[in-house]
Amino acid sequence: MAPAAVLGRNFLGFRRHELLKEHRVSRTEKFTPYDSSRDLPWKTSPLKTLNLTFSMGDDVIRRNRIHVVLPDISTLSWEPEVLDAWDDEYGGVVINPWSLPSSANAFASALKTSLFDWKLKGKRGIWLKILEEQADLVPIAIQEGFKYHHAETGFLMLTYWIPDEPCLLPAGPSHQIGVGGFAINDKREVLVVKEKCSCSSSDVWKLPTGYINKSEDLFSGAVREVKEETGVDTAFLEMVAFRHVHLVAFEKSDLLFVCMLKPLSSDIAIDDKEIQAAKWMAYDEFIGQPYYQEDHMLKKAMELCMEAYEDRYCGFIAHQLPSKLDGKLSYLYYYGGPCKI
Amino acid sequence: MAPAAVLGRNFLGFRRHELLKEHRVSRTEKFTPYDSSRDLPWKTSPLKTLNLTFSMGDDVIRRNRIHVVLPDISTLSWEPEVLDAWDDEYGGVVINPWSLPSSANAFASALKTSLFDWKLKGKRGIWLKILEEQADLVPIAIQEGFKYHHAETGFLMLTYWIPDEPCLLPAGPSHQIGVGGFAINDKREVLVVKEKCSCSSSDVWKLPTGYINKSEDLFSGAVREVKEETGVDTAFLEMVAFRHVHLVAFEKSDLLFVCMLKPLSSDIAIDDKEIQAAKWMAYDEFIGQPYYQEDHMLKKAMELCMEAYEDRYCGFIAHQLPSKLDGKLSYLYYYGGPCKI
Repeated sequence: MAPAAVLGRNFLGFRRHELLKEHRVSRTEKFTPYDSSRDLPWKTSPLKTLNLTFSMGDDVIRRNRIHVVLPDISTLSWEPEVLDAWDDEYGGVVINPWSLPSSANAFASALKTSLFDWKLKGKRGIWLKILEEQADLVPIAIQEGFKYHHAETGFLMLTYWIPDEPCLLPAGPSHQIGVGGFAINDKREVLVVKEKCSCSSSDVWKLPTGYINKSEDLFSGAVREVKEETGVDTAFLEMVAFRHVHLVAFEKSDLLFVCMLKPLSSDIAIDDKEIQAAKWMAYDEFIGQPYYQEDHMLKKAMELCMEAYEDRYCGFIAHQLPSKLDGKLSYLYYYGGPCKI
Repeated sequence: MAPAAVLGRNFLGFRRHELLKEHRVSRTEKFTPYDSSRDLPWKTSPLKTLNLTFSMGDDVIRRNRIHVVLPDISTLSWEPEVLDAWDDEYGGVVINPWSLPSSANAFASALKTSLFDWKLKGKRGIWLKILEEQADLVPIAIQEGFKYHHAETGFLMLTYWIPDEPCLLPAGPSHQIGVGGFAINDKREVLVVKEKCSCSSSDVWKLPTGYINKSEDLFSGAVREVKEETGVDTAFLEMVAFRHVHLVAFEKSDLLFVCMLKPLSSDIAIDDKEIQAAKWMAYDEFIGQPYYQEDHMLKKAMELCMEAYEDRYCGFIAHQLPSKLDGKLSYLYYYGGPCKI
């Protein structure tokens, strides 16, 4: 009987070549062992359960019922077990997140093998998505040299850049997108809210604002935020302006789009989880608050809204157009002109 | 001598109440053990090293040199070891990422204790940032109920929503921001590139485009991308239009800002890592490509650029304004009008 290969120190604690004798084969089953030898994936034969005698220095130790794999040494060949993956358009690889091994050891082994294989094949960027339920694989990927790319509830995306040159992989999502709704009625009253928070502006009457939802359009988000916070229905008219600011929440950047809205109802019903109060407030009283008078950015944005209301300003209109680029219907925002200025 | 508390099955493999007798105290040292009893953090006294005798059913087992902690049972009080953290403005807690325990066991214990404490105190959203070098703590946080929020190279942010109501925590960054530069010279020639990729549009002459860098302004990004890809210097004139599309890369959303640029030089030197070729191309030949003729979205955007070049269209200008809101100087983009239409 050919000597068994004891696979790596991690598996049994003994070095591979220390097997002296094997005894009895009790049963056969197939498995994929973790092989700590970094660059030598063995072609393996079915697993056997054996009683083995080992040497450790001067000592002789007998261990019973050890599971080992018998390598077919005469036919050693490169048959790496790579992770299931597909090529992208940029010479990179996208790993199938639904076929990752469930065991950490098996994943570690397959990941090493796969990276070795992809390096040989000249691949560039590797994309690895790990679902939340397999979070125990994350430290293994990091240890192997992967970097965090982006994350959201349910999964984490990591990347690995193979070439010995600056990484050309695109960065992950970097911006939060906020919308503010400027709804003014024919009595020149602006729909405003007081937020429920222990922040410095909790006493200020402000426009309803919020972040857009996943895959939500800007104008839809503005109408939704106003409806949720105040109960008032509105229709989007135009994008008056947008602000771009950096190093805000989570040190990320923020785009805030100020949207002109036409009120379609007037009764107020607040969302008391986030809002203390809401009301229709005379524009002059609204813009007269120190919060706006002392802030050039906010004051200018509100003045533009008023100019748009008085037809002295034209913002961007949302135009839905098909694009063959990605087969999607999407919105192009541009000046609808000419303006009645 | 008071009976030692054997801390949990994980630690020694015995149940807490099975200690019969302790023998000799050999030395004293302090440590924080992992306590698997979910909701009962003990006030602990210094660690002692003992020789102990235990019962396991009918068997009596003696173990030497066991490290145990002696609880001061008469003064049992709630002194949970919570993670270092501070309150945010919304009734939540931000955990200090630089003071997380290095050991996984210690982290697991402290996290349980902290969540118990924060629940008692009525806290709402918990923010946990785990640096890359502590990736082994990630599965522990997930197991405790934390969710991925966002990530970038170097760290992962997770959150935990305590109240029994819909989560009000803001979502993480959701958009990638792209810029495209339309640079046209006085011979009505547009600066165009052919990308180096195995994608379907690798044969098309397109505008230089790319994603903006972290904390980079939109117009800066457009000027930079043109410079990097073609070697040509430009100055930003106006934002002609922007496109909003969903479910693109990584199922995220994308905002692409089309920027009108004034060329300041003409010699071309391409970045051959990403670009096959670049040249000045007559506008009619550029827009005549099927890629543009067959795509309503792209064609409209290019036509707007040409109208802007011919002073028949006005986009948004970038105005830098201070904001007291967050003390930052940032840009407000709005129609600079009136237009010479």
